[in-house]
Amino acid sequence: MEATAPLRIGVAGIGTVGSALVHLIERHGNDLAVRSGRAITITGVSARDRSKDRGVDLSAMTWFDQATELAADPGNDVFVELIGGADGTAKASVEAAIAAGKHVVTANKALLAAHGNELARQAEAAGVSLNFEAAAAGGIPIIKTLREALAGNTVSRLYGILNGTCNYILTRMEQEGIGFEECLADAQRLGYAEADPSFDVGGQDAAHKLALLTAIAFGTEVDGDSMYVEGISSISPADFEAADELGYRIRLLGVACRTDSGIEQRVHPTMIPKSSAIANVTSVTNAVAVEADSVGELLLCGPGAGGEATASSVISDIADIARGDRVGTFGRPASDLEPYRRAAMRAHEGGYYIRLAVYDRPGAFAAIAGRMAELGISLESIVQRHRAPRAAAPGQLVPVEPAPVILITYDTHEADIRTALDTIKADGHIADAPQMIRIEQLG
Amino acid sequence: MEATAPLRIGVAGIGTVGSALVHLIERHGNDLAVRSGRAITITGVSARDRSKDRGVDLSAMTWFDQATELAADPGNDVFVELIGGADGTAKASVEAAIAAGKHVVTANKALLAAHGNELARQAEAAGVSLNFEAAAAGGIPIIKTLREALAGNTVSRLYGILNGTCNYILTRMEQEGIGFEECLADAQRLGYAEADPSFDVGGQDAAHKLALLTAIAFGTEVDGDSMYVEGISSISPADFEAADELGYRIRLLGVACRTDSGIEQRVHPTMIPKSSAIANVTSVTNAVAVEADSVGELLLCGPGAGGEATASSVISDIADIARGDRVGTFGRPASDLEPYRRAAMRAHEGGYYIRLAVYDRPGAFAAIAGRMAELGISLESIVQRHRAPRAAAPGQLVPVEPAPVILITYDTHEADIRTALDTIKADGHIADAPQMIRIEQLG
Repeated sequence: MEATAPLRIGVAGIGTVGSALVHLIERHGNDLAVRSGRAITITGVSARDRSKDRGVDLSAMTWFDQATELAADPGNDVFVELIGGADGTAKASVEAAIAAGKHVVTANKALLAAHGNELARQAEAAGVSLNFEAAAAGGIPIIKTLREALAGNTVSRLYGILNGTCNYILTRMEQEGIGFEECLADAQRLGYAEADPSFDVGGQDAAHKLALLTAIAFGTEVDGDSMYVEGISSISPADFEAADELGYRIRLLGVACRTDSGIEQRVHPTMIPKSSAIANVTSVTNAVAVEADSVGELLLCGPGAGGEATASSVISDIADIARGDRVGTFGRPASDLEPYRRAAMRAHEGGYYIRLAVYDRPGAFAAIAGRMAELGISLESIVQRHRAPRAAAPGQLVPVEPAPVILITYDTHEADIRTALDTIKADGHIADAPQMIRIEQLG
Repeated sequence: MEATAPLRIGVAGIGTVGSALVHLIERHGNDLAVRSGRAITITGVSARDRSKDRGVDLSAMTWFDQATELAADPGNDVFVELIGGADGTAKASVEAAIAAGKHVVTANKALLAAHGNELARQAEAAGVSLNFEAAAAGGIPIIKTLREALAGNTVSRLYGILNGTCNYILTRMEQEGIGFEECLADAQRLGYAEADPSFDVGGQDAAHKLALLTAIAFGTEVDGDSMYVEGISSISPADFEAADELGYRIRLLGVACRTDSGIEQRVHPTMIPKSSAIANVTSVTNAVAVEADSVGELLLCGPGAGGEATASSVISDIADIARGDRVGTFGRPASDLEPYRRAAMRAHEGGYYIRLAVYDRPGAFAAIAGRMAELGISLESIVQRHRAPRAAAPGQLVPVEPAPVILITYDTHEADIRTALDTIKADGHIADAPQMIRIEQLG
């Protein structure tokens, strides 16, 4: 009868996801028991403010003021960490739960990006599961897909739209031709962006998620710090206009790929062909594509955030534990993860979109093209838009105004592009800093 | 040490998928062992013709002339059935393996669509796994997603592009404006269609796959026979032309949804909005979308066929068994599956695309519109193209030629549409049988 005893859950952090989890376990309780082979019941909860009305009935559960106490309490078998943050209470309580021999389910990408290797080792030593489906791409089962479904694959590249806030902003900019600031303000009004949006629009949130996916996909230790991260705030309507003409869309992508010098991990605004499947992923939807030797290419799209969608992933992790399914935290024993060897971003090779505000005077463009040629950079296309000349009053000098020039390069080393742009800037032919957006070749 | 003994696999059927499986287990052997916690080794094989060169080295494996003998042989722990066919050797050997207490992995949709309930009960009674990720949508991990990842969800609708042959043909017809027969011949030449293509283009292959997905998604017994199935051979370039103008694409969809009167399962050519994510799934790629209460909408796209992609799914099933993960065949105990209650297709409600060849004479169109109105069918749009009148020699009668009329209805009962079309046909105003394509509303 031991095997059919209810699985007792302790939930720390009763915010949007935590409340949704309580709701869903109530709503799906009977079915969950049938599917998992045993009842799943929340026995303990913990949150900062006990008096706050969360719209869920917590009266049947034991309240803990301290998450670490809930984590150590013998009244639950699984500790669900929904507190957030890379350190502090989240880390302390997850460690306490593991030390108490409990399985842990967490939605905390920051925690795992910073301490995933250490926590995976602890969980392994204690013989418990550390599951985190909800930590990357919300309701999309990408962790399960990478950890389990792709066991017979060697991944060559993984890329995705991993931040709904950025995708919402970029999609609206694209569709309505409006600027970044205006879209961001709308996103904040609609609850798609935080009051302090820097973590999302700066790319760090996507970077944390990418780090977790990379570890599983490539069998390496998690390294959330060693990657190139660039946010979306520099993208302007002029870039969308040019992208559209050239057959591209602009998305914030997280990309991880195997190169000769190591694993390249990067998060940056990216030009992707309109015809690619991921280019049609709009608004707050997330998507992850995996390219691997056996399966070829897989694409998973779904909600990247939201209480119930995220709680759906938490329940998936809990159900796995209830059934007794055990997978290594990052898909294999922590001791078998290879050290993460970072490929230098300057060695990145790809096409580049470059937008320059070139002073409209004789020889300017020739000088720029010359700088490119010196570094062996070949141009696939050049779009130069001449401004209509301003009418000048008799005897008045017409000021030299910069005209936009768009260049698309063939595959080039990042180091060369950067050198070229520095030199061009120093030559004094362009106004403003050059805009540079990487192009990703997608199948 | 028992737990870390190699998992010994017997493979029956060494065709495209079987050979790929042998290759992949060789290629990924070490990594698979790390990920599964134990070595995975093929110890026995069986196929019809021993002398055939399959491009793989089978010399280290024991050869069995009879699949049933391999299935019963104590030299393997897992029986992989890649023989195919709903009955005969496939069924006999799977039953023999289960009777011998072995786990079974199969890619055989026909077998499970016909005998899934019975085999699931047998597997359950024997305490073994019956895994079949490769039986639906090739390399896409949709079985795992439905069985495990969506444990905390109630599915309301599931739809997908489940047959690569049909999708290839429809995509080419759409992109090149050519006819069905020509595309089919090309598909055959390229190996995308069988010499006898009727099973694919008639929709039965998609129907088998849909039946398996439906059982897991809705918790019902498998019923591969009780569904409406219509193939793609009636689709003409004129339909693609009209679809394009109206903002639609045409795909063969399998759709299962919950209705008041039961589960509606249907496979038919479908008009889907160009803006929908699945409309951008082209060529032989498959895709499955799931709409569920917690997660909202998920979409998975990937290869629906091909040796290595399908073998990737077989390996996923084997790795689950190697790790000791156990899930009910259809996501829950066979005894907990509800009987499948079929919703009558005539009760289906949706929009319809109708193309009629209307004799160009006074009152014809009014009569047709009148018939629609009598049955309460509202028209969302009407496109009538007048043919340029043929020049007649003096004194010669101009023959009345049919002109194409396209109607799009608002949501209507299938029964009413069928009655309307029967009546219109009987009225004698149209040449040829009316073309009718269901429209699916997609988010």
